Amino acid sequence: MVPEACVQLLPVSPPTVNWNSAVVKNILLVPSSSSAMGGSDDSDLIEQHAEEEMGDKNRAASSASLMGGSSCREGHSSTQSSHRLLAYSDALISIIATVMILPVAHTKVESSEELRQSLQFLLSAKIAVYLMTFLIVTVAWAAHIRLFQVIVRIDDCLALLNLACMMLITFLPYTFSLMAMFPKNILGMLLFCGCVMVIGIIQCVIVLYAFSHPFLLNEQIQISENQNFYKSHILKVIMRVPIMCFFASIFSFIFFQLSYVLLAIVVFLPYISQTFKWCRSKAIGQVEESPDEVLFYTYLPSEPLSKERVEAFSDGVYAIVATLLILDICEDNVPDPAVVQQQFGGSLIAALQAYGPEYLAYFGSFATVGLLWFVHHSLFLHVTKTTRFMGLLNTFSLAFVGGLPLAYQLTHEFPDHSHNELEAIQISCVIVFFAGIFQLAIWVAALYTERESLHPDVWYGGREHVFMLAKLALYPCVALGTFFLTCVLSEFSASIFHLMEITVPFAFLLLRLLVRIGLALLRLLFCPDRPDLRSMVEEDESRVSFNSVVT
Amino acid sequence: MVPEACVQLLPVSPPTVNWNSAVVKNILLVPSSSSAMGGSDDSDLIEQHAEEEMGDKNRAASSASLMGGSSCREGHSSTQSSHRLLAYSDALISIIATVMILPVAHTKVESSEELRQSLQFLLSAKIAVYLMTFLIVTVAWAAHIRLFQVIVRIDDCLALLNLACMMLITFLPYTFSLMAMFPKNILGMLLFCGCVMVIGIIQCVIVLYAFSHPFLLNEQIQISENQNFYKSHILKVIMRVPIMCFFASIFSFIFFQLSYVLLAIVVFLPYISQTFKWCRSKAIGQVEESPDEVLFYTYLPSEPLSKERVEAFSDGVYAIVATLLILDICEDNVPDPAVVQQQFGGSLIAALQAYGPEYLAYFGSFATVGLLWFVHHSLFLHVTKTTRFMGLLNTFSLAFVGGLPLAYQLTHEFPDHSHNELEAIQISCVIVFFAGIFQLAIWVAALYTERESLHPDVWYGGREHVFMLAKLALYPCVALGTFFLTCVLSEFSASIFHLMEITVPFAFLLLRLLVRIGLALLRLLFCPDRPDLRSMVEEDESRVSFNSVVT
Repeated sequence: MVPEACVQLLPVSPPTVNWNSAVVKNILLVPSSSSAMGGSDDSDLIEQHAEEEMGDKNRAASSASLMGGSSCREGHSSTQSSHRLLAYSDALISIIATVMILPVAHTKVESSEELRQSLQFLLSAKIAVYLMTFLIVTVAWAAHIRLFQVIVRIDDCLALLNLACMMLITFLPYTFSLMAMFPKNILGMLLFCGCVMVIGIIQCVIVLYAFSHPFLLNEQIQISENQNFYKSHILKVIMRVPIMCFFASIFSFIFFQLSYVLLAIVVFLPYISQTFKWCRSKAIGQVEESPDEVLFYTYLPSEPLSKERVEAFSDGVYAIVATLLILDICEDNVPDPAVVQQQFGGSLIAALQAYGPEYLAYFGSFATVGLLWFVHHSLFLHVTKTTRFMGLLNTFSLAFVGGLPLAYQLTHEFPDHSHNELEAIQISCVIVFFAGIFQLAIWVAALYTERESLHPDVWYGGREHVFMLAKLALYPCVALGTFFLTCVLSEFSASIFHLMEITVPFAFLLLRLLVRIGLALLRLLFCPDRPDLRSMVEEDESRVSFNSVVT
Repeated sequence: MVPEACVQLLPVSPPTVNWNSAVVKNILLVPSSSSAMGGSDDSDLIEQHAEEEMGDKNRAASSASLMGGSSCREGHSSTQSSHRLLAYSDALISIIATVMILPVAHTKVESSEELRQSLQFLLSAKIAVYLMTFLIVTVAWAAHIRLFQVIVRIDDCLALLNLACMMLITFLPYTFSLMAMFPKNILGMLLFCGCVMVIGIIQCVIVLYAFSHPFLLNEQIQISENQNFYKSHILKVIMRVPIMCFFASIFSFIFFQLSYVLLAIVVFLPYISQTFKWCRSKAIGQVEESPDEVLFYTYLPSEPLSKERVEAFSDGVYAIVATLLILDICEDNVPDPAVVQQQFGGSLIAALQAYGPEYLAYFGSFATVGLLWFVHHSLFLHVTKTTRFMGLLNTFSLAFVGGLPLAYQLTHEFPDHSHNELEAIQISCVIVFFAGIFQLAIWVAALYTERESLHPDVWYGGREHVFMLAKLALYPCVALGTFFLTCVLSEFSASIFHLMEITVPFAFLLLRLLVRIGLALLRLLFCPDRPDLRSMVEEDESRVSFNSVVT
């Protein structure tokens, strides 16, 4: 079945390596859990150094991809850089992850009290489906990243296999929503397990194919002596999920509750195994990691995750979410000429005024999502290395961002000063708050390993540290403030909310100024004896002193 | 209103330039129209050389952006590479360009003959809206590319201004569909013109801001002496569109037909002016271009267009289009438990079988869009320089791709062997044919200037030339074949169509083999005297000889 084109391949030009093998060994060793927690500094530094070197090589490869892949095609004419394939996959997966918010958004909320009970149940079920789908799709995405951190070049066969894999991943949300709507029917479960098993088999084929053409692989594996060990390790990790799904689908015939438990284990497997390892290391002391262990497929929270792909995925989610409302508006809010003639006496303006609140919701949600993207963008400009833990926090942030347009739409759907309006506005505030606070958490997590994860400008005491903090903290603070203000002044909740929408963009424009004023005020309060005239000149110094005051 | 943060900026580190100024001048000169047609070789070569050098610099800058923007931030701490901002803008614009297909897709086509007449009118109106929106949004996108080919670095202010610009661009399709539904009401026109004017003003602010902070600019402009000339030229070109929209909105009060003409001129302005120039040059002989003319904002078909952004935009469109049907399926095709209980006696499988054709439509359209993406990807791997003309052809191809899911959905909506089914299948074939033929046209256009636009592998007589031709020609040929087969064997149209859907992915997998067999056969036919045994060994030579036979 494997076509001739994929078999007849020239031998590869040997990779140009000039680092000594000691460094290589150091890279391939898993960081022991103590060093991952920031313990032993020496090994940390060596490792970081080695990784930087490695990173440079990866970057060189990815920059080569921008040059039309010309340098990548040296090995064989049909070999290509994987850059664009991965960008396309990221776009597909981000759309699929976000799309399950649509059934939630299109559930009509009735004002009458009788229907509310059943609708609230339906709505919460749909929200649960949305969150679970988002989680599952991002788990599949993380597995995809991991796979293509090992395989760094592609050819036509791999591109086509990857497209087949994508097709099945995009079908997952549907099987999952079947499962949620008919929890006692095993069909949804079987479809889901079937998809996951086929995805696993395709991924195994991809791995086998890539290992039979080693020039497609990561340079570390390409030059290593025990390629077979890597192959079996990777295959073992990949096959774990389909095998568990296979058992889940068999158990679903016998005792279907058990299969749900199995599926939950599949999703949370990395976290469970990590917690288990951590407990064991605490209980029986430091466990020596076997030297054969690899850097890939470790499930350690500090395992690197391609920063470029985290950015691409986040961009996709932010872009879809920002435009979700305009999709609805374009489809539903163009009035029918006949209706305009009958109901509004031919006045288009009057007809459009009925939709007024929806335009407001669109601009509000676009601005909020856009500014959250802006904060994310500013943060990741200063991030130099992404870990799996940071990726997880990013996923949580994005899951909340996905709910934002819905919340904004709700704020404008109810009559003024009603209880529902207040509730909707407060839900919006809560969503914005969590979306922002998880972004802040990414930064805090990065600060724990700031030497390898962050640009020196935003380290503790760095030039941009306070400014970055202000950027990240602005939305959570504003959302929290609005929430409590609406609790107290529930009469004016809508006005407060609109005021917030309008002022936040200007706050971002003037943020640098505001931070400076804030710092000056703080200095006045805490060190009033220092002359204030020099404050503008000695900016950097003052920031450092502020840090030492606060932290 | 400009915040302090944006004003207090350090002087830039001087750009490291080591090319002599003669080369620089040569770049900044507009290629005279004869050399653009492949005429004078000498100046062409110099220019190409200079451009390659320039391209390397751009690539270096963009690869720096992948390194966390660290090297870009050298100039000033708040300066950032624009890479991710542009990727996000591309994602937003591609979603908006594609989204107007949704109202078309959701128009229910009735089988009864009475309603068909009015529905066909409505449908064709909506398709016209879709195509026009696609065109207008891509014109806005091309303007955005042009702007950010001049401005290569951003800071926070520019990022926020760009987001504001994006918000208005995403609102354009709605105003346009208002215009289409109420052609005699001036409100849609006024809204559209208002949006365009505000976008123009924001872009002017961006240009003014960037020229007041020259380190944000392209290196060519940064080092040139007459920056002011560039500034006024760019502003003049940008302001042309809003000013015409201003007149259009004024005329709409007096004589609204005229304003539509004005708008059409706005959209086609580049092409009109280009045709006019070309005619003039033919009529009165070669016109000497003034030496002050710049490479940017020329409206020449050979003006370079950022290849990276063309790829990003295409990826966005392909990703949205591939998932359009699953969005519908996830929302509409999860049956209600009560309905399943009542109508299907609790059998979920029976209920889902009713949706069977829609799953088939999904997989069919995903596979087709995915494979068209694959062809596009293979083509652009070998493209080294994109021009405005190639961008235009790409836009046409994408516009057809956008209609694909709709066509596929239609093929499964009608009863078997009906006249409608045959029509729908033939429409699908036509759409696939045009989407593929425009991709082929991009390659043909690139071949006219193959030395600067293509990788040597796919030049006439290059190693991959025939293979690339086969890849690009596969879909148009298959679509054409299916079309004529369904004309002849209209009884079996559905089976033929499904057979095509299944065989095409395998054809792509085996394409290299098929091309080789085809070549061997051709050789047997045309040069039967050559020994066939050496054919596999002398592959490259045989390809060259094939080229000399065919061309």
